[in-house]
Amino acid sequence: VLRIGHRLVRDDRVTTHSALVSRAFGAEAIYMTGVDISVRQTLESVGKRWGGQFRVELINDWKAFARQWKNEGGRVVHLTMYGTALSSGISKLNCKSNAGRNVLVIIGAEKVPREAYDLADYNISVGNQPHSEIAALAVFLDRLFSGAELSKKFGGAALRIVPSPRGKKVREAPRKSIN
Amino acid sequence: VLRIGHRLVRDDRVTTHSALVSRAFGAEAIYMTGVDISVRQTLESVGKRWGGQFRVELINDWKAFARQWKNEGGRVVHLTMYGTALSSGISKLNCKSNAGRNVLVIIGAEKVPREAYDLADYNISVGNQPHSEIAALAVFLDRLFSGAELSKKFGGAALRIVPSPRGKKVREAPRKSIN
Repeated sequence: VLRIGHRLVRDDRVTTHSALVSRAFGAEAIYMTGVDISVRQTLESVGKRWGGQFRVELINDWKAFARQWKNEGGRVVHLTMYGTALSSGISKLNCKSNAGRNVLVIIGAEKVPREAYDLADYNISVGNQPHSEIAALAVFLDRLFSGAELSKKFGGAALRIVPSPRGKKVREAPRKSIN
Repeated sequence: VLRIGHRLVRDDRVTTHSALVSRAFGAEAIYMTGVDISVRQTLESVGKRWGGQFRVELINDWKAFARQWKNEGGRVVHLTMYGTALSSGISKLNCKSNAGRNVLVIIGAEKVPREAYDLADYNISVGNQPHSEIAALAVFLDRLFSGAELSKKFGGAALRIVPSPRGKKVREAPRKSIN
């Protein structure tokens, strides 16, 4: 996931949500240009407790980054309310000629520069109504992974939830023996 | 949708996203206990431009509200990372004996009081990892409506997007004639 256009302070919680969603819905990393350090700290703390290898990476030049992604054979998707329908986008991404190509998903804050539309292989809309890049990302990844992301295992977790119809059940991982 | 536990200022944008997602993903209204007036204004402005009849309602007592919902034959779902799997929850909600019953979806900020777990007919998790109530709501509604919500028509819109593979195409509705 590549998040562009973060505005300090105002977007802090929205950026944290975007990063948490990226992790929980099966992405390997989120790349950002300039962001409050607290976002990274939150994700590190979540990783320690809940496991997995998710990465928060700061980058300087998102256009160069996206171009390199494509040069290395990856696909670039830009989520925008102006794009084409989600269902047909997912079909294209999961078709044979795209199989095994890494997908970079671009999400932005309110105003996204024109270059994102041009750089993307696919401009995809999760509905054509204004809503939330957090929601768009979640639904996109849910469809891309056909729901399998929701049962992804996060290795090395200190805590694990036991799904429960009522209340909270959490298991702690056995501590490593000293021997 | 019922959003509980809003904290002034800090949660403002997250609450706005929750409301926008509720509208865009087919909910009829969002009910909130105390919220910055800007959330309501944003949704009114979106409604004027993009159409539909979505409502932002302030309520005093969310527990009484949820109880009444149940007394009138509706179902209450609480989205929580501690709940049971989304797929089985959706099956239960869409089964014959629940058909046509209005669904109230409770989402909360970080700490949700115990009563939400007890009042809910179903405590459902969208994955058992920490992420975002905005994402959980979007994916829940997307599954509940089987994706049909993304092509919902919003009546009376001043603007309508023409889905486009590149760039932004927006149509203005013809203005009403004066005669």
